[in-house]
Formats: sequence, C-alpha cells, structure tokens
Amino acid sequence: MKHHRIRNFNAGPAALPLSVLEEIQKSFIDYKGSGMSITEVSHRSKWFDDVINDATARVKRLLKIDDNYHVLFLQGGASLQFCMIPMNLLGDDRRADYVNTGTWSTKAINEAKIQGKNIQVVASSEDKNFTYIPKEISYNKDAAYLHFTSNNTIKGTQWASFPETDKVPLIADMSSDIFCRPFDMSRFGLIYAGAQKNMGPAGVCLVVIRDDLLKTAPDNLPTMLKYATFAAKNSMFNTPPCFAIYTVQLVLKWVEETIGGLEAMHKINQQKADLIYGLIDASNFYKGTSAVDSRSIMNVTFRLPSQDLEQAFIAKALENGFGGLKGHRSVGGCRASIYNPTPLEAVQELIDFMKEFEKKNS
Amino acid sequence: MKHHRIRNFNAGPAALPLSVLEEIQKSFIDYKGSGMSITEVSHRSKWFDDVINDATARVKRLLKIDDNYHVLFLQGGASLQFCMIPMNLLGDDRRADYVNTGTWSTKAINEAKIQGKNIQVVASSEDKNFTYIPKEISYNKDAAYLHFTSNNTIKGTQWASFPETDKVPLIADMSSDIFCRPFDMSRFGLIYAGAQKNMGPAGVCLVVIRDDLLKTAPDNLPTMLKYATFAAKNSMFNTPPCFAIYTVQLVLKWVEETIGGLEAMHKINQQKADLIYGLIDASNFYKGTSAVDSRSIMNVTFRLPSQDLEQAFIAKALENGFGGLKGHRSVGGCRASIYNPTPLEAVQELIDFMKEFEKKNS
Repeated sequence: MKHHRIRNFNAGPAALPLSVLEEIQKSFIDYKGSGMSITEVSHRSKWFDDVINDATARVKRLLKIDDNYHVLFLQGGASLQFCMIPMNLLGDDRRADYVNTGTWSTKAINEAKIQGKNIQVVASSEDKNFTYIPKEISYNKDAAYLHFTSNNTIKGTQWASFPETDKVPLIADMSSDIFCRPFDMSRFGLIYAGAQKNMGPAGVCLVVIRDDLLKTAPDNLPTMLKYATFAAKNSMFNTPPCFAIYTVQLVLKWVEETIGGLEAMHKINQQKADLIYGLIDASNFYKGTSAVDSRSIMNVTFRLPSQDLEQAFIAKALENGFGGLKGHRSVGGCRASIYNPTPLEAVQELIDFMKEFEKKNS
Repeated sequence: MKHHRIRNFNAGPAALPLSVLEEIQKSFIDYKGSGMSITEVSHRSKWFDDVINDATARVKRLLKIDDNYHVLFLQGGASLQFCMIPMNLLGDDRRADYVNTGTWSTKAINEAKIQGKNIQVVASSEDKNFTYIPKEISYNKDAAYLHFTSNNTIKGTQWASFPETDKVPLIADMSSDIFCRPFDMSRFGLIYAGAQKNMGPAGVCLVVIRDDLLKTAPDNLPTMLKYATFAAKNSMFNTPPCFAIYTVQLVLKWVEETIGGLEAMHKINQQKADLIYGLIDASNFYKGTSAVDSRSIMNVTFRLPSQDLEQAFIAKALENGFGGLKGHRSVGGCRASIYNPTPLEAVQELIDFMKEFEKKNS
C-alpha cells in the first residue's frame, strides 16, 4: 500500500524509517502471535524481554562496548538527565566541568547550579551566539566529569571531534546525533539521548553509563533518580515505556541490517549534509548560520535574504510536500533536520526545490 | 479484518479497547492527512496540540473539575510520583500522613523516608498481610496531605469509599483504578496514575493537581521534578511522550463516547467483578484472598486448593486463550485483572472456563 507521506525535516519528534513504521503497523494488533498488541503485553513477558534485550544488544554492538557499560532506557527525556547526572555523579566533595554550546548545554548547566553543585563552565561559544564549537578546552584535572552537547539542534553546530580530557570522563548529551557516526565510547563515562530525533519516538531516553559511575550516588537519592536502580533491573525497576523501546529496537535493527552499521550511516549522513551545505556555499541567496568548521551534519540552519522570503520559503516548501523547515522559535530562520531516518532522496528533492525557489525569488 | 486476540487479564501493561487499537493501526503511517505518523509529528504542531488538549478536556469532564485543577501528563510512572510528591508538597516545616495498604503504598512511604521527610503511617493493614482496607484512619489535622493507594493491584483490595480528612487534602495513587467509577475529586489535592492499566500504554503518568499545591515546591528543586514546570507549559516543557498521550486520548474518548462515561463504566466494571466473586463465593474450589468488604473490582485475586492446581489452571487457561492469570510473583496464586478495557464477554468466557476447570479437577 502506498501511503501519503511528506518529506519530514522536523527537528524532533522527527522522521522514522518507513519500513519501521510499516512493521509496527502490520503487527500492531497481534504482536508476534501473542494475540496482544505490543502495547498490551506485560513488560515481564518473554515478548518484551526479547525486545529490550535485543535493543540493548544492538546498542552495545553499535557502540562497540562490553559489560563495563550499562545500557538503560529511562523516561523524562534528556532534560531529566540534566539533573540526574549531578545528583548521581557529583558529591559535595567534587566539582565538574561543563562546556556551553547553546540552549541545551545552558539548561544542563542551570540544573546543576539549581542543586548548588560545584561546577565550572570551562569553555563557551556564547560570545558569538553559539555559532561555533570552542577549540580550546582548559579542563580541570580533578573534575568528576566534563559535560558537553555533541550536537546543537537549535544552532546547527556539532563537535567534529570530542574534547581531550585524559582521565576525566566525558559526558555528552547526544540527543540529536546519537548513532549518526562511529565514535570511541571508551573515553566516555556516560552518554544520553532522547530517542525522538535519531532513533525512535518521544518517550524514552537512552543512557549508557560506565560501571564505576553507578557507585557514586548518595544514599538519600530517591530510587527513581538513581542510575543503579535501573542498571540492576535491566531498565525494568518499574514499568518501562514499552512501545517507545520497541520502536527504538526496530530503528536500531534498521541501522544495523538495512543501512549496514555506523560507518555506512555516517557516509549517508555526510552525503546528505554535503548536498545542502554545497548548495548554501554556492549561493548568495541561502546563508549558513554556523561556522564552517562547526557545521552539524544533523541540523542544517540557514537564512534567506529577508524574513518575508523565509516565511514564503517555508510555506511554499510545505505546499510542495516538505515539512518541518522552520527554524527553532528562539532563533528564527530555516532549518533542515536530516537525522538518520531522513532518506538521501528527500534531501535531493529538497535541493531541487531550494534551487527553484532561489531562481524564482532572487 | 479479524485479528487473532487472546482474552487478556494482564495486571499491566494490560488490555486496550480493540476499537482503539484498530484506529491507531489504521492511521499509524499517515496521521489525519499530515503525511506523518503520530510518532513523527512535532509536539509543537497543531496535530499534537489537538491530541493533548482533547485528552486534557476529557480528563476534566470525566473528573468534573475546572480550572483550579491542572491536568499533567508526565513520565517516570507512578514510581517517580512517590518521590515527587514529598519533594513538592512537604517542606521541612510540615508533616504528612500515609496509609499503608500494600506493596505500592509501602514504596510511596519509603521514598518519602529516603528524603528524610517527616511522615507518619496513620493506618496500615500489614497485620493481616494487606488483605483488607483499614476502617479507622486517625489523621493529623496539621498534615500537609494524606496519601493512600486507592486500589491495590497485587493484593486485590480497593477502597470502597475514601478516607474522611476534613481540610487535609487527599492524595491517591490511582494507577489501577482511575476512571473505573465516579468519585468526588474536590476532596483531593492530587491524584496520579500510570496509564498502563486503565487508560493507555506504559510510558505516561496522569497527574491532576490542585492549583494551590503548585506553590509549595522549594527553589532548589530541579526543573523537571517540579509540578509547576509542567502546569505552566501544558505538559510540554520538554518533549512529552506523544504516542502514549495519543493512546490515552483515544481510550478516554472510548470511555466517554462508546461506554457513556464513568457511571456506565462503573456499572460494567461492577458486573464483571460480581461475576467472578459470585463464582468464588459459590465454590469450595476457588477461594478469594481479600476481605469481602475490601474486594477490588479491578484485580480479583484467588487461590486454588494447591499450587499444582494453580499452575495447571494458568497453563490450561492460556491454552484456551485466557492470558495474564498468574498472581504477582510476590504473592503467588491467581489474579484476573479486569480493568476498564476488559470486555464483559471476556469475563463471561472466563467464568465458563473456571466452572469447567473446577468440575474436572475437584
């Protein structure tokens, strides 16, 4: 069956692979012969055990990690992690470093400060409205961790390579670029990512945490805010967000089996980004907003000569079947989010549309 | 299309109305002509605005409440509420009362204690293994609230009427009986319910909170743990669990429009419960485990003459298309969870099966 589908450039919740959606739809009322929907099976059943164990195994394979890391599927989004990380990892006798590269980094910093934690912002790109990724990071050798945002959805910037901090573990909010490319997880103490951009629907947050970091939480921390609670129970201390985890499982299966893994995924993502940045660089009409060496391959932010033209562009694009091209309400302009599930053809069609729009309006 | 379906007596995640599942399936890939799945639309779009606003309006109509109550859709399940309630409502100068009627009440009590909060257990049925609901509640007149669990999923007990506490606001975990019957919300300061039993899939927790209780949270409480954060942003401070909220919306629509509201829902639920308890009371083979005046109309817990027979019963039931009849692992025995979505016919068929099993095995 052919479905009516738009070319979806939403920043999140974002596009999912059509094959994944079709599989969910097909088996929605009778999941694998259980006689139940995946939304109706018990989280203590073999059906859901298979789902969460397969999702976990795929995360471990994609990140090339073994049992000294724990894969957790939590609720509350990346935003809850902003407070859980200092709660669990930053005792009163320790301090931590943060890099500020935009809206989400700022929120993470604020949530540590609200709790009265001892943190230092060791680098920031606020001086240029967060349009670049800082090069020099003077981290503290005694820091409990260094926190940064690997990709900045709103500003359209991304770390090309991660900060060097020797023995200080890295912690990154990877909500908008998890699994977009291979990276060396052994330098990280913890990574986290809301699913709704690169790997699933809203409602689940992936956390991968190194074993030794499960032991630093204070005794008076509520059970549901402790990483160790979920690590000990395979993310099922209480009922997990089953449907969201199931969808993540299918998206990771798609990354591994249809795309062929993170190297292949990266190649496609780079191709998609190169197409749009190539057009922007060749044009006097479209103008990229982030520094060239800090450009995101996930969120391409750009401006047109006027706000009127931007509005016309977004409206005309929608008419032509391209959705989600409006920039974040805090910065304006345009943005094409081209996460893992966005197919190359969608970007090629967008390029054609952008060329035509430029021709007609410049 | 006729689907393979079992009679699902799961305790949670539990059965959903077939008509709701069919609607989700039908529109899963192109939600209302958007060209996107409901899992792909932005939470800032008109499509999702309509979903969450309609869900909120339905909660308000069903509970007969107006704007002095806020309807919130949160993540983390009821278990996160165990810690959020004392965090938000119980300053160091206040104390609160708790009633202990089982596993979940005990957890709520423990999470307040972990934080060093001043609470008192003013009534408990622990003396008889939580098989009844306490009658006499000597609440403290200066308590910030009195907390109880309206229905005890594991023990199969339920409050027939709620504690009288004059001006002390009631707080109840209604995870396993929300919307099963009408009740007077004006006596409550806050109610909460994980969706996965009576109103949706796992992954969203409904909280209804009285306006004045938004103001008691301390300044150093992290943003994501403050009720006021979500009340101010229509539950969308960050990306909400869109798919779970969408399903809740459809289930509440079904309660209102197909069933006809809470009075009608209660009548059906009472009918279903009466059928099973009637069989149990007429039988020397099946034996109910909860006090007659404390019986739950949502979770019917019962034993057979031996553990071997219980195992045989559960296995034979499954063979005959009845799922989820095993009691909670902490108590053993059998349990039929008959939440709102469980149709009367499913219970009638179960009764026939139970009669036949008794005849063959006694």
